[in-house]
Amino acid sequence: MPLISHRGIQMPASPIRKLAPLSDAAKAEGVRVYHLNIGQPDLPSPASALEAIRSINRTTLEYSPSDGYRFYRENLVGYYEKFGIHLSPEDIIVTTGGSEAVLYAFLACLNPGDEIIVPEPAYANYMAFAISAGATIRTIPSTMETDFALPPVEAFEQLINEHTKGILICNPNNPTGYVYTRKEMEQMRDLVKRYNLYLFSDEVYREFIYNDTPYVSACHLEGIEENVVLIDSVSKRYSECGIRIGALITRNRRLHETVMKFCQARLSPPLIGQIAANASLKENGEYMQRNFDEYKSRRDFLIDRLNRIPGVYSPMPQGAFYTLARLPVEDTDAFCAWCLSDFRHEGQTIFMAPASGFYVTPGLGKNEVRLAYVINKEDLNSALIVLEKALEAYPYTLEYECGAVHSKAYL
Amino acid sequence: MPLISHRGIQMPASPIRKLAPLSDAAKAEGVRVYHLNIGQPDLPSPASALEAIRSINRTTLEYSPSDGYRFYRENLVGYYEKFGIHLSPEDIIVTTGGSEAVLYAFLACLNPGDEIIVPEPAYANYMAFAISAGATIRTIPSTMETDFALPPVEAFEQLINEHTKGILICNPNNPTGYVYTRKEMEQMRDLVKRYNLYLFSDEVYREFIYNDTPYVSACHLEGIEENVVLIDSVSKRYSECGIRIGALITRNRRLHETVMKFCQARLSPPLIGQIAANASLKENGEYMQRNFDEYKSRRDFLIDRLNRIPGVYSPMPQGAFYTLARLPVEDTDAFCAWCLSDFRHEGQTIFMAPASGFYVTPGLGKNEVRLAYVINKEDLNSALIVLEKALEAYPYTLEYECGAVHSKAYL
Repeated sequence: MPLISHRGIQMPASPIRKLAPLSDAAKAEGVRVYHLNIGQPDLPSPASALEAIRSINRTTLEYSPSDGYRFYRENLVGYYEKFGIHLSPEDIIVTTGGSEAVLYAFLACLNPGDEIIVPEPAYANYMAFAISAGATIRTIPSTMETDFALPPVEAFEQLINEHTKGILICNPNNPTGYVYTRKEMEQMRDLVKRYNLYLFSDEVYREFIYNDTPYVSACHLEGIEENVVLIDSVSKRYSECGIRIGALITRNRRLHETVMKFCQARLSPPLIGQIAANASLKENGEYMQRNFDEYKSRRDFLIDRLNRIPGVYSPMPQGAFYTLARLPVEDTDAFCAWCLSDFRHEGQTIFMAPASGFYVTPGLGKNEVRLAYVINKEDLNSALIVLEKALEAYPYTLEYECGAVHSKAYL
Repeated sequence: MPLISHRGIQMPASPIRKLAPLSDAAKAEGVRVYHLNIGQPDLPSPASALEAIRSINRTTLEYSPSDGYRFYRENLVGYYEKFGIHLSPEDIIVTTGGSEAVLYAFLACLNPGDEIIVPEPAYANYMAFAISAGATIRTIPSTMETDFALPPVEAFEQLINEHTKGILICNPNNPTGYVYTRKEMEQMRDLVKRYNLYLFSDEVYREFIYNDTPYVSACHLEGIEENVVLIDSVSKRYSECGIRIGALITRNRRLHETVMKFCQARLSPPLIGQIAANASLKENGEYMQRNFDEYKSRRDFLIDRLNRIPGVYSPMPQGAFYTLARLPVEDTDAFCAWCLSDFRHEGQTIFMAPASGFYVTPGLGKNEVRLAYVINKEDLNSALIVLEKALEAYPYTLEYECGAVHSKAYL
């Protein structure tokens, strides 16, 4: 039997999906499993998108241009304009989900052995795409004590060497929900300028910022226009994960031409997805507001309730639809697996993503879980009851100082 | 400005799409351009697929499983069964087009520096995917004199060294239309077995075999079950290029697990595409026969007409919907560009793909073009008139021995 490639061996299994077999087994027993593990929005896709799909009147479902339909890219220009991001259709390449945008950005910018710096915890698949490109991700821990704010500039500078090719951020952040401030974004701008780095900025959650931190896009930063690669996707903002439509945005013409060679090799992004995404761009009023309000209200409910569970702490995330919570256990990998395989409360259990998969530094996040608030409030309530009961029943739940658990001082 | 990656520089521009700006300019002048350059079928997608899309009754367009919906994989098992290929749903991974299947196969199997052997001319994007994976494609010329049959086994053995990790074939072949015989497939089987290689077999044109050469799939070959990676796609067989649904098929469990890690990183293949592809599987009677008959009749017409144009020769392709024709010019890159930029016959011109992009060995195929018969016969007729007139008008058309051009002896 011929050998598997080294990178194939190095590739991590998905931390979000790796416990899925235990969940499937629980469901097969008739157990109700509350999914807080995966960022699959439950909210409806826009009616306009569904209507556009149902109105397809083509006879041949043909290739679209490798950079996506021009009409869609033109409409995207208008969408970004509303966020103060000034683009032309030639700056936008439509990709097969944000995933493909990350992969092609890495393939076009990074050589094997090149390094990029990423604050951790981070979206686990960045690591997978870096491995695919033969590049190395070097991480700098952000901490729950600072609500996962940007680590100090000095920490970045300590890691920068001749192999460093870029910095990657996710803003608003998955998994922490943190939204970078203007000051932090300007620190990043100065860094990439000083060291001539790429700034890969994944901003797929821009629609979901709940507090008054303004949205500062990497595309707002002046003087680094050739360094910025914006990663985007309609998956989260329109609850359209399945249509696989994202975008890679760059004003760097040389990089644009290079990414296009990868895009031409794979021929085209999905046709029907582009039609649905294009129709969704009209949804900037009631639909977006309803989803925003719903997520915000779930967030408030979830964080309040989490912090009432003895020994549990979650900071208040400002954006996206995740939080990273600390549980009174030593090893959330074991606890999350136990919930699925052993624990039932009134025929229900809970599926959480152990945070270890979002960290690169070994040992970090061992007592944290990522929770996605993508189920309705009633189910969220039930899930939190299950979590509380599970922590009571779990044989390895740690002692904690009663009464101190709501306070950040406890941390 | 940060640097582009080496592989980004190495990536070839698409030989099929690189002349597109000249074609666009001609169209902008009002010229009618006959597209024989790209394998975009003009025939309709199945009514059942369009109906399935129009009947979407989901409220949220969500992620599907990373390996694709089980119902679709189960139905694919039945599809392959009709070709004598015995699979289980666990052998099939649904991909975003055949393109993604090739890329993930290379990423999972090949290390940077590894080599795969491919008979040339070959589908140009294999080279692009190999570069993406850091691997090297080494080619063995097949020739028009033998209708592009498999080169002798000795030619493969001469290239095999410690870096050789696999052989890649496309059967029926794009761009030549050749269909490998049982004897040739068994030679390939013996080779991969003897040298412990992967056999990557792209069989997306299996529905279009016009002569009595039987379809011998790599999956039919006994004793190399762990070596074979089948690449498939619904794009060509159902005229559904735009839905981006392909498949990577392997019975090698270790490889399956590895490819799944790449698939989990990109989350899921397109949802709506899977629904359309699944509906298309019902189309095995009239629809498939009608398309088959149409392509066959176009092929017969095209090849007959090509061989009547003085100085032109095309072998009779046995499958797919392409032919590689030799023109009486020294450099088809220049001739194809000239047709688009300079030549008009009654307000029309022709877009052909210069064959040089399908060869790796420099200098090969300089006087060949790939023609795709994906326009109706009336347009094909007009396109051939344009080609004949263009060859008459082109200042660099070569002298040829009159009367000898229909005979293979001339070659």
